[in-house]
Amino acid sequence: MHHTIMEAEQRKTGYSYTIGPYMEPVLTVKPGDSVAVETLDCFECKLENESMRASDIARIPFLNPVSGPIYVEGAQPGDALAVRIRSIVPRGDQPRGTTCLQKYFGGLTPTSRSLSAPFPEIVRKVAVHEDGVAWNRKLTLPYQPFIGTIGTAHLLFSTDTLTPGNHGGNMDLPDIVPGATVYLPVRKDGGMLFLGDCHAAQGDGELCGVAIEFPTTTTIEVDVVKNWPIEWPMLENDEFIMATGSVKPLEEAVRTAYDNLIGWMVSHYGFNKWDAYFLLTQAGRVRVGNVVDPCYTVGASILKKYLVPTDDIDFDALAREKA
Amino acid sequence: MHHTIMEAEQRKTGYSYTIGPYMEPVLTVKPGDSVAVETLDCFECKLENESMRASDIARIPFLNPVSGPIYVEGAQPGDALAVRIRSIVPRGDQPRGTTCLQKYFGGLTPTSRSLSAPFPEIVRKVAVHEDGVAWNRKLTLPYQPFIGTIGTAHLLFSTDTLTPGNHGGNMDLPDIVPGATVYLPVRKDGGMLFLGDCHAAQGDGELCGVAIEFPTTTTIEVDVVKNWPIEWPMLENDEFIMATGSVKPLEEAVRTAYDNLIGWMVSHYGFNKWDAYFLLTQAGRVRVGNVVDPCYTVGASILKKYLVPTDDIDFDALAREKA
Amino acid sequence: MHHTIMEAEQRKTGYSYTIGPYMEPVLTVKPGDSVAVETLDCFECKLENESMRASDIARIPFLNPVSGPIYVEGAQPGDALAVRIRSIVPRGDQPRGTTCLQKYFGGLTPTSRSLSAPFPEIVRKVAVHEDGVAWNRKLTLPYQPFIGTIGTAHLLFSTDTLTPGNHGGNMDLPDIVPGATVYLPVRKDGGMLFLGDCHAAQGDGELCGVAIEFPTTTTIEVDVVKNWPIEWPMLENDEFIMATGSVKPLEEAVRTAYDNLIGWMVSHYGFNKWDAYFLLTQAGRVRVGNVVDPCYTVGASILKKYLVPTDDIDFDALAREKA
Amino acid sequence: MHHTIMEAEQRKTGYSYTIGPYMEPVLTVKPGDSVAVETLDCFECKLENESMRASDIARIPFLNPVSGPIYVEGAQPGDALAVRIRSIVPRGDQPRGTTCLQKYFGGLTPTSRSLSAPFPEIVRKVAVHEDGVAWNRKLTLPYQPFIGTIGTAHLLFSTDTLTPGNHGGNMDLPDIVPGATVYLPVRKDGGMLFLGDCHAAQGDGELCGVAIEFPTTTTIEVDVVKNWPIEWPMLENDEFIMATGSVKPLEEAVRTAYDNLIGWMVSHYGFNKWDAYFLLTQAGRVRVGNVVDPCYTVGASILKKYLVPTDDIDFDALAREKA
Repeated sequence: MHHTIMEAEQRKTGYSYTIGPYMEPVLTVKPGDSVAVETLDCFECKLENESMRASDIARIPFLNPVSGPIYVEGAQPGDALAVRIRSIVPRGDQPRGTTCLQKYFGGLTPTSRSLSAPFPEIVRKVAVHEDGVAWNRKLTLPYQPFIGTIGTAHLLFSTDTLTPGNHGGNMDLPDIVPGATVYLPVRKDGGMLFLGDCHAAQGDGELCGVAIEFPTTTTIEVDVVKNWPIEWPMLENDEFIMATGSVKPLEEAVRTAYDNLIGWMVSHYGFNKWDAYFLLTQAGRVRVGNVVDPCYTVGASILKKYLVPTDDIDFDALAREKA
Repeated sequence: MHHTIMEAEQRKTGYSYTIGPYMEPVLTVKPGDSVAVETLDCFECKLENESMRASDIARIPFLNPVSGPIYVEGAQPGDALAVRIRSIVPRGDQPRGTTCLQKYFGGLTPTSRSLSAPFPEIVRKVAVHEDGVAWNRKLTLPYQPFIGTIGTAHLLFSTDTLTPGNHGGNMDLPDIVPGATVYLPVRKDGGMLFLGDCHAAQGDGELCGVAIEFPTTTTIEVDVVKNWPIEWPMLENDEFIMATGSVKPLEEAVRTAYDNLIGWMVSHYGFNKWDAYFLLTQAGRVRVGNVVDPCYTVGASILKKYLVPTDDIDFDALAREKA
Repeated sequence: MHHTIMEAEQRKTGYSYTIGPYMEPVLTVKPGDSVAVETLDCFECKLENESMRASDIARIPFLNPVSGPIYVEGAQPGDALAVRIRSIVPRGDQPRGTTCLQKYFGGLTPTSRSLSAPFPEIVRKVAVHEDGVAWNRKLTLPYQPFIGTIGTAHLLFSTDTLTPGNHGGNMDLPDIVPGATVYLPVRKDGGMLFLGDCHAAQGDGELCGVAIEFPTTTTIEVDVVKNWPIEWPMLENDEFIMATGSVKPLEEAVRTAYDNLIGWMVSHYGFNKWDAYFLLTQAGRVRVGNVVDPCYTVGASILKKYLVPTDDIDFDALAREKA
Repeated sequence: MHHTIMEAEQRKTGYSYTIGPYMEPVLTVKPGDSVAVETLDCFECKLENESMRASDIARIPFLNPVSGPIYVEGAQPGDALAVRIRSIVPRGDQPRGTTCLQKYFGGLTPTSRSLSAPFPEIVRKVAVHEDGVAWNRKLTLPYQPFIGTIGTAHLLFSTDTLTPGNHGGNMDLPDIVPGATVYLPVRKDGGMLFLGDCHAAQGDGELCGVAIEFPTTTTIEVDVVKNWPIEWPMLENDEFIMATGSVKPLEEAVRTAYDNLIGWMVSHYGFNKWDAYFLLTQAGRVRVGNVVDPCYTVGASILKKYLVPTDDIDFDALAREKA
């Protein structure tokens, strides 16, 4: 069955500025259902022209609005939600893409608020079409849309939508694109899925902290994987499987993501843990999502065609011998 | 003119375990000359079979031998060395590829030497051919060789070959491949170039700390860029330009690399600094070299086709206005 | 006026496992009132003997129970709550002190869950008296009790009680002792104060992650500082003022704490910002609270007797000249 | 026997800007001998008045000059050097104390060289007497002198004097004071001891990167501890034992220092490793040396009076049981 969460509908209860268990679902779906969601951009679509400043419209802590939550029937703690992304289509008036500099935010922003002035609050508005992002008069960047913020509720905790973590959230991971399936932990009945903050283009790390933000109609298909108690979001597409980690410092995000990936290779693909550790050393790939949010996000992946265990070595025996 | 540094020649003075100014050149070349260098693997090719342990053959601090130094005529402090990599060809008996676990080394190794036992010292030997790395009976990984350790001497300091830094060194950056040109700072007359530690395959981050290590004949072409006082290694190929940062924590490596890249875009490609910052936010790419060495290495890059400044915006005026 | 929150009272609504705006106050007080609070230890006092394991009694995410929230009349967003700690008295049967090792927790715990076994779950029970902590037969440690977790609600977000941040929370900062006044941001009417998780003794960093945890009667006095919109918890006693930072990596916590301290010296003690920066370089003190929680906590302080601005130098003029 | 290294003597061969094996000893001593060393300040005493800028006199890489090396007879790889600090006496004309801001250096300096201007290069000169540091007209700080940079040579590597590490070096650790004994690894015959960069006062972390730098006559007594192959500098005084770690990020320095301390407690004080881990959790102390150099330094310590093992618990048996 297909559903919609139109902007007007969501506005009745309000977009959410937190991912947690304290908001009523705006929609209930069954496993296998699809939903077209009208998302806002991270500025609530209020940064309308280049003469504005981000601080003009910021109403802290009401930042980075997300749609939802969506209650998925049958999803229970210990299960995983499988969210297949079907399409991300731009909406709204042109120029509907926005990037800007914000006060004391971003990867190269000054360290000290007491001693340094912030960067200037420059705003750039760009036209976003499905065939490209009009960066400047001479350069069009490819339209590579993805969901910046997607996550499920903790049982007790309610996280701001700026922070990624083991619930997902503001991961800013450019692999969460149409064609990918994101797996999210279910910690509360129904999973309680939130999403928004789509980006039309973004470099690795989202350097200044603001990608090409834009409002979209994002269509997803939601399913439940029973009895898969994942601790962190995972992801898969036709080519690879990817595990995530969202922590600081960044090397700990890399370690967490790879560690989760080893766990997945062992549990689902027949790997011995040492075999997996060795293989990822030779063939793992690291995607840096963001290095600007309160936690940093990394996706560690391995091509599916490389998911071939070494079946003629008894690694456990070897481990005992080489201890 | 073409030169060689054969293994037998290098052994006369010895491979070097440090990158610094205190070793006599093994070869002097002119700008434009090429050199075929017979490199050892990081274990000095002594980890010969799977029944061994890395700790059997480690003679601390004589680790990770490199070839050189090569003195480049005309290279003076304030210049950059341009090292174009022509080819990396395997040499030595099969199985000539080596990976292994080492004591308290690697991205997922235990934190504490006092409280935790190290991982088992498993060694894996694999055949390396120019058409593939024979990972196991059913899986062949692509042969994607690169130079793991390459750097130039500081004027006064002599760095161990395990540590990357602003001299280059053990960056383990998989983009240092045939076809790429690496730019290295000249801090001492002649530049004093060292290289070795080639990898036949490696995942991002070099997770366990040991890629597919192998001995090679690596052919480079060396040139001098006068009056380009770079602080950090840079890299370029037909598709992109890349700046590096080798520091800890990893986010600081990302920031350093991107900061260096902005500097390069401003100095050579006509960018205003804010324009560069914005563009990298949308289109920059991050490659994680290693997260296992004493410093971690990141390469930040941008496609050459995107090096198109926004020429109709006066960013400096805008910055004053939006301050 | 004096109030109490007895254990029996708090159990009616339940201890809280989150610091946030979604729980009804268990008590309303006026500025100047005092409250005696019966706190549980972080294990809910269920780790009763040394034959148990922490994992036996952990009901994730119901960890680290705190008392409250306390609604303080007149406290409004933009104010600060001033919590003066009067006394921390042990309660409960002996041995009432608990420390232990937990699975994959603590400063020296293994990096990888996939590859390493956790540390053994050893539990130690020790007698806690007001004249000392009976560590072993030959060694008594001083009784130096403090509040491990204290914080106020965000307006929208609800943080787990294991994580410290700009709301306070699980800072594990040994300076939050009787005699100190903690300032906490008010982000929701009434402030909504939570506290618990007292420690009878703790080293800097709380290395294994579990100090001498014990149940207490903690008496505080609560006041409101109108129009002091602090972003982070601050602290003061007769000898020094201290600002906090709770982030990762640890150097960022140090920077945040010092930056907040400079801000305080400028706003309240007549310092020029450069003068403050210089003075802290020579006389600032850093206390490491914890290096084990999801964020790490640092307190940066300066003795009150050193709060003497350099009044014969025009730093701003100098800064322009030396720019 | 007592020796001196007067400034005039050291200037014959030159002060050293590197700690390594490539410089001839300026003095050879026997175990038990004492040496009075005339040290320069880190600016080579060239920052003479407040109208100057640090960048006026910096001759990169000739920074932070140290005295030595001192060859200690009988010291061989696998031994430790014991350096007892007897006194640190100021020398030179007043005002002989110097602090300043430097370009892109210090704990709160801007992140990006490409995007941010550096802090202003303010210089402050202050009178340093043995009874106090004349901070400003109204405030005298206590004279608490210590050695900022002290270390021994690696066998092959030559480290700049700005970087601390497992050789010691620029640790900026305020516990290296008269009365303390510093233990340093011997990695080359004679140990090859370097020292300098004394500070008359310094806060934890050395926030702006420049303490009260001053020239001194520093008197040390040097001894050899045979067959003590320490990996990192250690320290002891009448009250405590301290282990160090100099790495980034700062939490890794804390972990390294504590891990080294556990090793010391196990090897020399009869502790079971778990007992040591538990005790440091309750009673360990962390001193932050610097958070500004290329590596950050931490000292972790425990009072000698607490070095009392728990002798009635079989921790190893317990560990097996609770695994």
